[in-house]
Amino acid sequence: MEMKVTSYIQGEWLTEGAETNLISAVTNEPVAQLVEADIDYQSALEYARNVGGPTLREMSIHERAFKIKFLGQYLMEHKEKYYEISTHTGATRTDSWIDIEGGIITAFGISSKSRRHLSDLPWHVEGDVERLSRKGSFMGQHICVPRHGVAVHINAFNFPVWGMLEKMAPAIISGMPVIVKPSPIGSYLAWEVFKDIIESGILPEGSFQYIAADKPGDLLDHLNSQDMVAFTGSAHTGKKLKSHPNIIAKNIPFNLEADSLNCSILGEDVTPDMEEFDLFVKEVAREMTVKTGQKCTAIRRTIVPEKRVDEVIVALKARLEKTTIGDPAQKETRMGPLASSQQAERFEEQLQQLSEITDTVYASTSNKNGAFTNPRVLVCHQPMQVDEVHRLEAFGPMTTVMPYKNPQEAIELANKANGSLVGSLFTADDELAHTITMGCAPYHGRFMVINRHSAGESTGHGSPIASLVHGGPGHAGGGEELGGARSVLHHMQRIALQGSPTTLRNIVKQHIKGAETQESEKHPFQKYFEELEIGEALTTEKRTVTEQDVEEFAELSGDHFYAHTDPDAAARSLFGKIVAHGYFVLSATAGLFVHPDEGPVMLNYGLENLRFVAPVAPGDTIQAKLILKRKNVRQQKKDDPFPFGVVYWDVEVTNQENVLVAEYTILTLMKRKHKLDIDEG
Amino acid sequence: MEMKVTSYIQGEWLTEGAETNLISAVTNEPVAQLVEADIDYQSALEYARNVGGPTLREMSIHERAFKIKFLGQYLMEHKEKYYEISTHTGATRTDSWIDIEGGIITAFGISSKSRRHLSDLPWHVEGDVERLSRKGSFMGQHICVPRHGVAVHINAFNFPVWGMLEKMAPAIISGMPVIVKPSPIGSYLAWEVFKDIIESGILPEGSFQYIAADKPGDLLDHLNSQDMVAFTGSAHTGKKLKSHPNIIAKNIPFNLEADSLNCSILGEDVTPDMEEFDLFVKEVAREMTVKTGQKCTAIRRTIVPEKRVDEVIVALKARLEKTTIGDPAQKETRMGPLASSQQAERFEEQLQQLSEITDTVYASTSNKNGAFTNPRVLVCHQPMQVDEVHRLEAFGPMTTVMPYKNPQEAIELANKANGSLVGSLFTADDELAHTITMGCAPYHGRFMVINRHSAGESTGHGSPIASLVHGGPGHAGGGEELGGARSVLHHMQRIALQGSPTTLRNIVKQHIKGAETQESEKHPFQKYFEELEIGEALTTEKRTVTEQDVEEFAELSGDHFYAHTDPDAAARSLFGKIVAHGYFVLSATAGLFVHPDEGPVMLNYGLENLRFVAPVAPGDTIQAKLILKRKNVRQQKKDDPFPFGVVYWDVEVTNQENVLVAEYTILTLMKRKHKLDIDEG
Repeated sequence: MEMKVTSYIQGEWLTEGAETNLISAVTNEPVAQLVEADIDYQSALEYARNVGGPTLREMSIHERAFKIKFLGQYLMEHKEKYYEISTHTGATRTDSWIDIEGGIITAFGISSKSRRHLSDLPWHVEGDVERLSRKGSFMGQHICVPRHGVAVHINAFNFPVWGMLEKMAPAIISGMPVIVKPSPIGSYLAWEVFKDIIESGILPEGSFQYIAADKPGDLLDHLNSQDMVAFTGSAHTGKKLKSHPNIIAKNIPFNLEADSLNCSILGEDVTPDMEEFDLFVKEVAREMTVKTGQKCTAIRRTIVPEKRVDEVIVALKARLEKTTIGDPAQKETRMGPLASSQQAERFEEQLQQLSEITDTVYASTSNKNGAFTNPRVLVCHQPMQVDEVHRLEAFGPMTTVMPYKNPQEAIELANKANGSLVGSLFTADDELAHTITMGCAPYHGRFMVINRHSAGESTGHGSPIASLVHGGPGHAGGGEELGGARSVLHHMQRIALQGSPTTLRNIVKQHIKGAETQESEKHPFQKYFEELEIGEALTTEKRTVTEQDVEEFAELSGDHFYAHTDPDAAARSLFGKIVAHGYFVLSATAGLFVHPDEGPVMLNYGLENLRFVAPVAPGDTIQAKLILKRKNVRQQKKDDPFPFGVVYWDVEVTNQENVLVAEYTILTLMKRKHKLDIDEG
Repeated sequence: MEMKVTSYIQGEWLTEGAETNLISAVTNEPVAQLVEADIDYQSALEYARNVGGPTLREMSIHERAFKIKFLGQYLMEHKEKYYEISTHTGATRTDSWIDIEGGIITAFGISSKSRRHLSDLPWHVEGDVERLSRKGSFMGQHICVPRHGVAVHINAFNFPVWGMLEKMAPAIISGMPVIVKPSPIGSYLAWEVFKDIIESGILPEGSFQYIAADKPGDLLDHLNSQDMVAFTGSAHTGKKLKSHPNIIAKNIPFNLEADSLNCSILGEDVTPDMEEFDLFVKEVAREMTVKTGQKCTAIRRTIVPEKRVDEVIVALKARLEKTTIGDPAQKETRMGPLASSQQAERFEEQLQQLSEITDTVYASTSNKNGAFTNPRVLVCHQPMQVDEVHRLEAFGPMTTVMPYKNPQEAIELANKANGSLVGSLFTADDELAHTITMGCAPYHGRFMVINRHSAGESTGHGSPIASLVHGGPGHAGGGEELGGARSVLHHMQRIALQGSPTTLRNIVKQHIKGAETQESEKHPFQKYFEELEIGEALTTEKRTVTEQDVEEFAELSGDHFYAHTDPDAAARSLFGKIVAHGYFVLSATAGLFVHPDEGPVMLNYGLENLRFVAPVAPGDTIQAKLILKRKNVRQQKKDDPFPFGVVYWDVEVTNQENVLVAEYTILTLMKRKHKLDIDEG
């Protein structure tokens, strides 16, 4: 393998520039050259803003999310190539799975959550309309719109693929073009994936550019307030970039994800003969050695009851002894080298600093040379007194064991790191779990509690999950990423719109309660998905509810609640008389709006936000109005033989005095005439 | 009136210190003394963290929200005193309404939205549980918890009451103690309200402290990563504080709300004979003169079609001529003085700068002296070329008229301010409204579109609303406040919890899908609100659905959809055979779980998130399980004679093969034995 890691700017690969060798962590030989071209950052940003941005913003959120899904499928087909390249970063197959397939799965997850929770429009209509006036002629509606800028991603070396995809996917889905600058270390892997993304042709021109460089030059000087920056890496560099004069002057959003001194706690209820004890030791050892400990989520602090310190150390040693260290390409290897010999030197320096405040209780005897290193277990006997042990990080296969006297002290130790990405707790006692979790919660972005019931299916202490937020307060950077659709919304500008409901509807392209509607010329359930329009309405016939209806419904449903059946008791109730069952109103309303014939409507598969607002009594006459609120295209796979979409209808049921008695939203599946028209590149 | 504006720190009024006169904007005479004590900020912060914080965090979000509601009621009873004091700030009764009652109403609004949207627990359980594993033994749940720190609020001079309450209410509801430092100008008003808040005794000790000072001294040096800062005021000061070394070093959340050059746009469809023309001119004149133009949301830029510039100026002049300037205590006064003579001098300097790039087309002839000033209308004929006109702000009764050639140019002009708190548009053309709103959206925090239908009930361009977000990108600070329950969540740490569903339930105290349940020993609808426990379950009898059931239900409901009634057509459908109506399944399930007798259950008034997951056909046997998911206390007023609570029940309907056929949540009103036990002080 001999690769040139080049920048991709304004649709061109920049092949000329100063070359630096990128060294294999395994062989210590060059595997690629980093080609640092002289990049005109201002032009690169303008290209993203003027070419990539407008194209992305024309698509709906769902269309952009489908692009990411199809891109993930494309990359998955090429994954073996990435695994091969990845061994040079020092990663075993298991390590690389987290990076490569973990990254692709994260992109799938963000895509899927976006389609589930966000509008199928270029913007997202967020939450309910806010009534701001008595008569309802002036209302408020929040929407989240794509920013007119560029998302700049400055990534860490430890997860070249995951780091690139977990940030890029939500930015693209939000409608923002991306410029990525991976860390040069291991960048040949990020670059190979990037190259395939460009070659796939799935993303529109100008939406993704790559900077091959050691430092981002004057890039940050050219950003404006519509741009945003996400940085993952050391707290030191992160804070430097975050306080860059231009970032401060223009209030440019800056998301910082920094390494933190995460901990795992062994509950004081756990004795060495309990399953939770083994699960804890296994997890600590695993987090120490996976990615050779180069994870910003690794367990740097192992917090155990005073009386269990020796037992934990003995068990941990026994596990670590079995860790085969070597060439990650070999099957039997459990731990490869660090990412570079520089990283190995740095790790030794950091351990040296820690050695002044801790004792080393384990250092395996295997050879250290080049980027290779050994797992180390330290112990700090006075962790409540020694603040440095909660601050100094050694970025490699190590952990420091810390004793605690009682649960309150365990909480204080956990929180002494002043903010972590993740913490975990191993206990069989849920009451203890409640106490410790709530004590630690404000200082953590994620907190995992494991017992024998959850361990088998656990994804592990160190794994960020697409559907859960990733990030932590304080020392961990104060940022937030992932968390499903939240990650997309982080990239968007939330704006409160105010106006008449009809105007709001015409602006946001979703029905707004109170907006004018258009009575459908033909029953809307007889129309195909594509033929249906926002605000299209069906006003039903009327039906007068009789005493017999209520009696028959009680009989048929089996619901003999006194308010519907017992006149004396009903007289004492909230309504003072017999009223119809809410479920009868619902059923009779369906009877009013359903069209009996076969047609594009497949089924009414869901119902949301139902409120019975006023009672319906025998003698009352009800009528319903269905209004098409919004539509989402669904597609199970590229060539779905059964194309359909979900249509949301607002239902308003009124009585003879035009008083609202019930309101809700129903979800119908409607057939589509055509399959999804998304350019798959 | 002779007041001493003193600090309130660690439960004491600090009456000793350097005194400075606070001058009436009207009489130019001292109305109060600012007493700057020598405050030990570190101790003040520790007091909030150790005394106020823990007490607040023991309450539920709803309890804290009720405190804010009762506090608002208390302040409303004292409002006339505030109006009297307020005239010295230069505010007319109308101006003061926005500040005083507007502030109290905002607190009510945040309280009400919090009780509607957030959990009745010390923390908020956010969103659905995330299934992270195949068998469901490992799940994820987001919660938002109170930060273990202090909310520091550094407020602007223009809205002493509103500014204090709109920030304090969400912080307290989130569970964070507050330290407020109002601007000294007009602080005698903020102080009077603060004093009443303390005297009411409604807020717990240590939860609210007051700094009487010109500058916040070394306060920011003592903050840690669990604290947060909110600043409203000039962009210059805001950026200085935001980049304070300790704020950067500890990643302390900093919310910045800065004055921005907000605009209002007249649509090109609007002719002078249209209602929208008058509405536009009226709004611009109003925003210029309300609070004597000292609003961070005022219309500084009036963007009009080229051909309408002269007509707009003429109409604007005519309106402004009628503005009576004088002592705000006089009824006929429409505009009072600026907040101080220093503010008046500054305003003139700012106008001087603007005069180099604009022409003054209107300056009223009334006397200027002391803090009094005149409304000014400027015009800039080349606003696309002159960038400064979109940057330089004059903080007083003025606006600059700017012509545009076409809607695209109007959008560009609006956005040239690089981020505004609010924009508005007057048009009768909804298509134009869509184009301009979407073009401006990423640069604004709020955008109001007015036509003849919405104008009558409009709350106006300049008014932030409790339920809508307030803040804007870029020049406006990049912050976000208000927005209903969002404002509370901004103060909380979001954390992703992972574990078995039962463990998660035991940690968060809300039922989690898949968690163990406890079969109720007595029908739960026969229990009072207080007797019901999370996870309490009712497993019903079984019912076999018959062909006759389906036929009778079709008859009774009137729903003759072919899938339930026509065997031939049903055979061609998704399910290949006759299936029961979803609404029958729902009704029959109610029949299974309802207890017929009178009891604490009042009614089933709502239903949420219903999904029909699998079909039910004649011959199938259904059974339901109700699980108590969560409870919310409701209280309409202090002495509600009819105490109740809302109970949310998860309903799972399964068939004879234990396959889930439907799932949803029902809301019941349950009687309480006791009235709400909240200490009202």
